[in-house]
Amino acid sequence: MKNILNIEIPDNLNGIGSLEPFQGAFTKLKKGWMEEKTVPPPNKAKMPHSSKLCKTLREAIEKTKPYSGMTVSFHHHLRGGDDIVVNSIRILAELGIKDITLASSSLTSAHDALLPFFKDGTITQVFSSGIRGELGKAIAQGVLPKPFVIHSHGGRVRCVHTGKIKIDLAIIAASAADEEGNATGTHGKSAFGSMGYATIDSWYAKQVVVVTDNIVDYPCVPQSITQNYIDYVVEVNSIGDPTKIAGGSTRITKAPMDLQIARLAANVIEKSGELKEGFSFQVGAGGASLAVAKYIRKIMKKTNTKGSFVLGGVTSVGVDMLNEGLFSSIFDVQSFDAEVSSSLMKNPYHIEIPAGVYANPFNCGCMTNKLDIVVLGALEIDTDFNVNVITGSEGYVRGASGGHSDTASGANLTVVVCPSFRGRIPIVKEKVHTIVTPGESIDVLVTERGICVNPNRPELKQNLIDGGIEVKDIHDLAKEVEGITGKAKPIETTDRIVGIVEYRDGTVIDVIRQVVE
Amino acid sequence: MKNILNIEIPDNLNGIGSLEPFQGAFTKLKKGWMEEKTVPPPNKAKMPHSSKLCKTLREAIEKTKPYSGMTVSFHHHLRGGDDIVVNSIRILAELGIKDITLASSSLTSAHDALLPFFKDGTITQVFSSGIRGELGKAIAQGVLPKPFVIHSHGGRVRCVHTGKIKIDLAIIAASAADEEGNATGTHGKSAFGSMGYATIDSWYAKQVVVVTDNIVDYPCVPQSITQNYIDYVVEVNSIGDPTKIAGGSTRITKAPMDLQIARLAANVIEKSGELKEGFSFQVGAGGASLAVAKYIRKIMKKTNTKGSFVLGGVTSVGVDMLNEGLFSSIFDVQSFDAEVSSSLMKNPYHIEIPAGVYANPFNCGCMTNKLDIVVLGALEIDTDFNVNVITGSEGYVRGASGGHSDTASGANLTVVVCPSFRGRIPIVKEKVHTIVTPGESIDVLVTERGICVNPNRPELKQNLIDGGIEVKDIHDLAKEVEGITGKAKPIETTDRIVGIVEYRDGTVIDVIRQVVE
Repeated sequence: MKNILNIEIPDNLNGIGSLEPFQGAFTKLKKGWMEEKTVPPPNKAKMPHSSKLCKTLREAIEKTKPYSGMTVSFHHHLRGGDDIVVNSIRILAELGIKDITLASSSLTSAHDALLPFFKDGTITQVFSSGIRGELGKAIAQGVLPKPFVIHSHGGRVRCVHTGKIKIDLAIIAASAADEEGNATGTHGKSAFGSMGYATIDSWYAKQVVVVTDNIVDYPCVPQSITQNYIDYVVEVNSIGDPTKIAGGSTRITKAPMDLQIARLAANVIEKSGELKEGFSFQVGAGGASLAVAKYIRKIMKKTNTKGSFVLGGVTSVGVDMLNEGLFSSIFDVQSFDAEVSSSLMKNPYHIEIPAGVYANPFNCGCMTNKLDIVVLGALEIDTDFNVNVITGSEGYVRGASGGHSDTASGANLTVVVCPSFRGRIPIVKEKVHTIVTPGESIDVLVTERGICVNPNRPELKQNLIDGGIEVKDIHDLAKEVEGITGKAKPIETTDRIVGIVEYRDGTVIDVIRQVVE
Repeated sequence: MKNILNIEIPDNLNGIGSLEPFQGAFTKLKKGWMEEKTVPPPNKAKMPHSSKLCKTLREAIEKTKPYSGMTVSFHHHLRGGDDIVVNSIRILAELGIKDITLASSSLTSAHDALLPFFKDGTITQVFSSGIRGELGKAIAQGVLPKPFVIHSHGGRVRCVHTGKIKIDLAIIAASAADEEGNATGTHGKSAFGSMGYATIDSWYAKQVVVVTDNIVDYPCVPQSITQNYIDYVVEVNSIGDPTKIAGGSTRITKAPMDLQIARLAANVIEKSGELKEGFSFQVGAGGASLAVAKYIRKIMKKTNTKGSFVLGGVTSVGVDMLNEGLFSSIFDVQSFDAEVSSSLMKNPYHIEIPAGVYANPFNCGCMTNKLDIVVLGALEIDTDFNVNVITGSEGYVRGASGGHSDTASGANLTVVVCPSFRGRIPIVKEKVHTIVTPGESIDVLVTERGICVNPNRPELKQNLIDGGIEVKDIHDLAKEVEGITGKAKPIETTDRIVGIVEYRDGTVIDVIRQVVE
């Protein structure tokens, strides 16, 4: 069968089961209104005054009675500094556990050390928003027997609610926790801010271990994770490398082309008609996206415009804008630097939210549904405005779905910012290798060589033209790019499907096939 | 069949189904460890940028498409000042809805106006922690066709988790809320503090309406109730009478006998060995219990003892002790006066908790399981230390289970304070009319005429004797009381069961039979 984007989706896939083809951003939501089935969270019980403290992570894991075939979950708030995923999987491997489904909210190059466990049958399937580095390459090459499932941040919550991901054991890293497992990421030597991705795991996992390098006196405050869900608590020397927890792709670029694109995008936003009193705003991490915030801040000051909330993926630029009174609140599912953690701890209008409140389409109003403007990046974008943020030019997995499709679908104005090509590689092109976000959700593309508006937004196009912005047809832009880079050689793949890209509603928007080396 | 307290429990009861007899405070917990089944919470969905605001409560209720046979839930944080329960039921009655199961976390004499709806078939069953006034009398007289189910505060959460209470519509009053339904009770003209009892309703109800007399700019902070669960939001002129919201039975007594009992109880606690560095503490509302806190405060200052947390049912005495540094935190499921609301809003160590975290036995450690000392009242207590807090001397329902059995089971030291008789009515007696809390959970009884220790706590008895406290056998005390009041005439009842008292684990600890007038 083919989905609405004309991509061939098998009815069934070994290791996953039956697949439902993508039908459009809100088609299933409208059809399945309040009818999507959920699974019950586990019941647990503990005798009064019993202790949850364990001496070592290994002791805690052993107490949960791990078994082959289980699903183990983690959050990725420690980003490039994370030590907990690799350490935990190593312990499970030492205990002889095989056939693990790894359900981490995302995976980074900090997890390259998992590769041997991908190869030896310890891990046989992965559910994650993204994967990078050696793991992403190996997955594209077909290292795992079962297909990798890529979900959005909102989609992951739906996966857990509906039992697609059945977590047996959640191991939740915290920068501070007390003896009962009340935990936070807002303070401690390894502070990483919001614990938004971990909430759903704590609610639904059959067993939950909180691991921290900072046991504090009872009670830990604030309580991002609460004791009623926590089975065991363990203190370790370190949950990761704090210097790599904040930083990396989340710093504002100094690259001249990115800054140029960001300036253009800010101008587009100003002229779009959406930058109005009380607007809400999100920018993606990395590249030009983050830099847009800097220019929007200037425009807001110049035009004396006050916004409602900043959503994200929060950096210190967002915190500055809150402190300056440019926005009245921040909703924070993930925090990108130390300044953000401290604001989250102290400012009641800097609000920590679970990923479900951030972006799960199946609830009574996630934040992305209330979003006015979002600025997002792209690895590739095609002439139908479909966006790839997951596979690179060699066909390896080297990105993350993240909140891309979640925010793009909800926002009134979705702006994609990217260069039109990188090196000799075209970014704007006729067909992307993998679709993560459907073109219907993208309103405008801003590149250094032209701005294109989705034909489904004619009034937006007129606003931009009225504002003195030159708008280019995306087909013309793609041809222009092809003239420079030459036609991109398609990535050679076998028929074997090594990964599926789930849309946020659980349908399949694309598949990833094994690359031919 | 008989339960472990020798009370006859039918296998089945019309309007409820099969009954499980009480087996002991932790027997079922130990047996059913992690095996108790839960039900899935509903899935919902809303299109982006859609509004939840309704013009009237009636419009909001109509939008939820109410039907006969439905279950409607409320919280009782507005206590004696509540207008929302009666107004909502009146609207449902006007809409022709019949056979409603009313699942309010508790009911007070503010709800006497529901009586016509009990009589005309609008309401046919009640699940609640308690009921008083005209309703409690009518229920004991058999006004409802289906038995009243009395649960504890923790037990109510279990009822919802396990599907015993299936909420179709939750109507949640808030003293401040925003357009999306983020809501709090900590500020606004009708501030009532913690919304702890409403959390579970917001999570599990098929539809949720937030009703407030104070719509605030988005976002409402703090967010005791969060938008992802809320279907509709409505602003009304008033959610109740603020002068009756705080106050009533929650003021510290000035009655000389209550103060005498409170002083004795404080002395018992001091000599028990449990008032040690880092202890945690709860006092019940009303009568002598609340006054005990005043004396404990003095002892803590005198002995320079610092406690861990105050739990409850929080009054300004608890807040004062937090502010004085006598305790390091408060966990607040229900707040009893304006000063408490303001502390809850401002002090991060004054922590709002859902009723599940407070007292649900089926999770990984509710707060009552971590409690060291609790002081509770009683309407009656028998020579096996079984306590009645639900039926009065005429057999009418005139009290509430509340957190009585929850805290009694978890605390290391459970102290019951009450006069030995009231008027010509014995309080300490051979057999109570209705058991809410089993004697095994009660450690010591303090009355104006003697202190009795449960024989299952010989070491406690020794500590008290060593501390110079005279300990009396409870049988002797009961006989002494009988000598004063004369033998209590047993309450005449028919065989018809009009109510069951659920123990917190879902088993039946006692039944309430129809009184003969």
